[in-house]
Amino acid sequence: MQQRSEETRNRILMAAINCFSSHGYDVTSVAEICEAAGMSKGAFYHHFPTKQAVFLALMESWLGGVDEQLRAVMQAAPDVPSGFVNMSQLFGEVFTAAGGNLPMFLEFWTQSMRDPAVWEVVIAPYQIYQNLIAEFIQRGVDEGSLRPVDPQKAARWLLAMAMGLLLQGLVELDEQRSETAQKGILSLIEGLKA
Amino acid sequence: MQQRSEETRNRILMAAINCFSSHGYDVTSVAEICEAAGMSKGAFYHHFPTKQAVFLALMESWLGGVDEQLRAVMQAAPDVPSGFVNMSQLFGEVFTAAGGNLPMFLEFWTQSMRDPAVWEVVIAPYQIYQNLIAEFIQRGVDEGSLRPVDPQKAARWLLAMAMGLLLQGLVELDEQRSETAQKGILSLIEGLKA
Repeated sequence: MQQRSEETRNRILMAAINCFSSHGYDVTSVAEICEAAGMSKGAFYHHFPTKQAVFLALMESWLGGVDEQLRAVMQAAPDVPSGFVNMSQLFGEVFTAAGGNLPMFLEFWTQSMRDPAVWEVVIAPYQIYQNLIAEFIQRGVDEGSLRPVDPQKAARWLLAMAMGLLLQGLVELDEQRSETAQKGILSLIEGLKA
Repeated sequence: MQQRSEETRNRILMAAINCFSSHGYDVTSVAEICEAAGMSKGAFYHHFPTKQAVFLALMESWLGGVDEQLRAVMQAAPDVPSGFVNMSQLFGEVFTAAGGNLPMFLEFWTQSMRDPAVWEVVIAPYQIYQNLIAEFIQRGVDEGSLRPVDPQKAARWLLAMAMGLLLQGLVELDEQRSETAQKGILSLIEGLKA
């Protein structure tokens, strides 16, 4: 029973991703999500009180757990620049995993500009990543592999580049987009090296 | 008369920016734009056939002419890396000029994912900038100031970083955002130097 409930919840989330990505969050109704998921409104409201709750759950599932993954990658690397090089290889996975659903990424940001509740959920993990990357950069400065930059600022540059590359990957369905993305990050790391 | 017509058109555009930025493109109606602009629907339709036409006009006015400006900045610089350094100083102007209307930037991208007509208008100038920056990078490689990178790819990295920095500037109203943005671009240029 527990498992079936979990399955229903996931079906709602998947249907919602498709609806939000194709038509946008604003114009998507709960009725449309239910139709796409092939279930009743009753089943929907058993799992989520509102359309926004589904949206927030999607964001949390997308953004949560990334910090653990980044920490593991950095820990396995011999030095900080190599750790970032290995992280940059995650682009391929992100593009593959996100598939046609990357437009949701834009919806998150667009909605966060308008709704403080969404802003909290989008920005909170963003600041966690920024602090985590700043921590890695500080380690790089300490070990002498990076030049003495302001860790918070350099973390912003790396995140800015990563987001910009995701944004490009959205509109240009380039075969080589993950390789291009990876090399871009490497050039920035090159510029941060001691 | 000509001048008055121009003024009316600009009033519609300004009102539309505010409506789209605050509530989003999808949920904004022509009636709301008219109310915000303090004019009749008749006056509106005299200037624009549809809401989308206003949106496309906004994009064109925002994206047009940037290539001329970039060309002038590069021409005035002694070498390509200095040219990019000078370009990075335009961030301050962009943040100031855009004011509270930067969310429109997100709307452009979000809408372009859904509507081929918008995609054309967003992506066409984007590819012009990318080609222009690739041309600058090729010049840098030729003059020996940049390492022998693929100019199109390096142009994508620079644009990705610039877009990511704009995106960050949207959500984090940091006092130092233009300085942070500028230094980020400089670190990337550093990584591209010969």
